[in-house]
Amino acid sequence: MRKRIAIDMDEVIADTLHHQIVRYNKEFGAALTLEQLVGKEMCDAVHADHRSLVASYPYQKGFFEDIPVVPHSQDVVLMLTEHYDVFVTTAAMEYPNSFMEKFEWLGRHFPFIPWSHIVFCGDKGIIAADYMIDDNAYHFEHFAGEGILFTAPHNVHEARYRRVDDWMQVRDLFLP
Amino acid sequence: MRKRIAIDMDEVIADTLHHQIVRYNKEFGAALTLEQLVGKEMCDAVHADHRSLVASYPYQKGFFEDIPVVPHSQDVVLMLTEHYDVFVTTAAMEYPNSFMEKFEWLGRHFPFIPWSHIVFCGDKGIIAADYMIDDNAYHFEHFAGEGILFTAPHNVHEARYRRVDDWMQVRDLFLP
Repeated sequence: MRKRIAIDMDEVIADTLHHQIVRYNKEFGAALTLEQLVGKEMCDAVHADHRSLVASYPYQKGFFEDIPVVPHSQDVVLMLTEHYDVFVTTAAMEYPNSFMEKFEWLGRHFPFIPWSHIVFCGDKGIIAADYMIDDNAYHFEHFAGEGILFTAPHNVHEARYRRVDDWMQVRDLFLP
Repeated sequence: MRKRIAIDMDEVIADTLHHQIVRYNKEFGAALTLEQLVGKEMCDAVHADHRSLVASYPYQKGFFEDIPVVPHSQDVVLMLTEHYDVFVTTAAMEYPNSFMEKFEWLGRHFPFIPWSHIVFCGDKGIIAADYMIDDNAYHFEHFAGEGILFTAPHNVHEARYRRVDDWMQVRDLFLP
């Protein structure tokens, strides 16, 4: 039987953080960089006065529409589907406005993932898979399979799980 | 550790079939009854000329907004949450127009289910739970826990799984 891989969206196949930084810099004439976010969440890296606005970005209509695709994720996920059952599992329930935007984004950028293999959830302990590729280590805590941490600035100090820095490393880990 | 129960929406806590029959009878001046649907899907019970329209109901905007609640489901699900981890797991991906309507319906009728415990999916083989209460036996085929079939007209001839006819029977099965 084929092994199953659950793949997160934001910070794994969708470059949501980049999208947020570009927007923040434009709105505030700021020069925030990825390097300044190492070891922290974006809300903790911006000026205290901007925190609540930045935290509200993902709740706004349209936010998830035009997020850039993480480099090489399309090619490698497509290759993975040849050897594994691949599901996209995203904690969309936190942002109900994102449902349709995320679904349409997947249809545009990952048309080879059928609707039957898309999951919108909250607590990812509900996911039955052999592997989960995610940037949030807390999702692995109640997950019965192996969590593979996809590097993002906020998680660089997390050392409990196997880590991949990019999609080339995912390919090397899962494909012959 | 508490056992986990995954509960379907349509035909289990949401009386979608009743809603469809009422709508069909109104639109066509028909007198379709639940009894006429025994052992079949609604599309197969209506006049051949109406099939494609009936099949399109769930794809229409607003369809999932005002579905009636299945009797006793609210009380019993609330009681279940005291003893089990309860997730609502619905194959919403087939009907993307339903996302927001289903989410808001749950907030209205099952406000004690947190967003972290709501799952929109397709193939329910992705669900990790001890029990799944569902009216569609095909969801149990790749499910690692025990499927509990919730009786609906279309599934009366299914004999492979433990069956409950209503929420009183769910209560008796799961609660002391």
